[in-house]
Amino acid sequence: MSTFETISQFTRMLKNLDQWLQTATAFAQTRNFNPDVLAQARLAPDQYALTQQVQSACDAAKYAAAYLSGQKAPSHPDTEKTLGELQARIQTCVAYLNTFKAPDFAGAEERRVAPPWMEGNSVRGADYLTRIAVPNFYFHVTTAYAILRHNGVELGKRDFIGVRSWTDFSE
Amino acid sequence: MSTFETISQFTRMLKNLDQWLQTATAFAQTRNFNPDVLAQARLAPDQYALTQQVQSACDAAKYAAAYLSGQKAPSHPDTEKTLGELQARIQTCVAYLNTFKAPDFAGAEERRVAPPWMEGNSVRGADYLTRIAVPNFYFHVTTAYAILRHNGVELGKRDFIGVRSWTDFSE
Repeated sequence: MSTFETISQFTRMLKNLDQWLQTATAFAQTRNFNPDVLAQARLAPDQYALTQQVQSACDAAKYAAAYLSGQKAPSHPDTEKTLGELQARIQTCVAYLNTFKAPDFAGAEERRVAPPWMEGNSVRGADYLTRIAVPNFYFHVTTAYAILRHNGVELGKRDFIGVRSWTDFSE
Repeated sequence: MSTFETISQFTRMLKNLDQWLQTATAFAQTRNFNPDVLAQARLAPDQYALTQQVQSACDAAKYAAAYLSGQKAPSHPDTEKTLGELQARIQTCVAYLNTFKAPDFAGAEERRVAPPWMEGNSVRGADYLTRIAVPNFYFHVTTAYAILRHNGVELGKRDFIGVRSWTDFSE
């Protein structure tokens, strides 16, 4: 599981997340409520709402790609308020991730990564990816999924994984 | 992020999950309710309860290690009903994962993996790990965490990630 393969997987999962938001919008229309109510839904009063879960998932993927390639991450301000705006945020992030090719991550595993919130500390790239970026990314996409499921949106494990048939793997 | 590093990360996350169950038990005692009520808690009526989330997280890790090393996975029947029994299940799984060393996964990325539920199909080991095992594992640990948070258990992102200080990374 190379760094590039992991970043590519983040892209796939963000596209799945985009689909869940689409399904949520259709569900709201069927049930005659404003889909953007879901943007503020949360599972616990002191946990992020759906909006921040989507923004955080995007950021986890964006910063992993930037840090591990030695690039400066582009700024994507957290201004979204509707499901449509969250889908646009996902598209912006996916477009950024699509600019990377495998050679951009040459030496990524041994590269020192020093995010600002580490306050001067740094970790090995492989540790950053495996122990911070991947769990953090999946935390936010899964919590977004859980918020939608808790609110009645009809989604299942196949929507989460995003694999429709085994021939998908031939790519 | 080698196969062995990913399996080691599963082990770390399972130990974190064990800690969340411990925190949940203490929370229940403080609030004077039976902690095992949480074992049946779920976020949606057609989603797994906490018990199955923990069992599924363990199985995702166990089968990844077995399939990618070419071993037969041991049987761990889904008999748990209490948080204590779920913690024991986690310990059993962690003990199994601890039997693996890095060389056991030599050639894992190119190994063909054919779980019974693929009904005769197979996928490349690297695809199995990145696109099935990792998302599936994090799906279940994050949903377990979300069920506990939704029921008021005091947990935060540091408990999820399980990193207490940056010196943890020197191991």
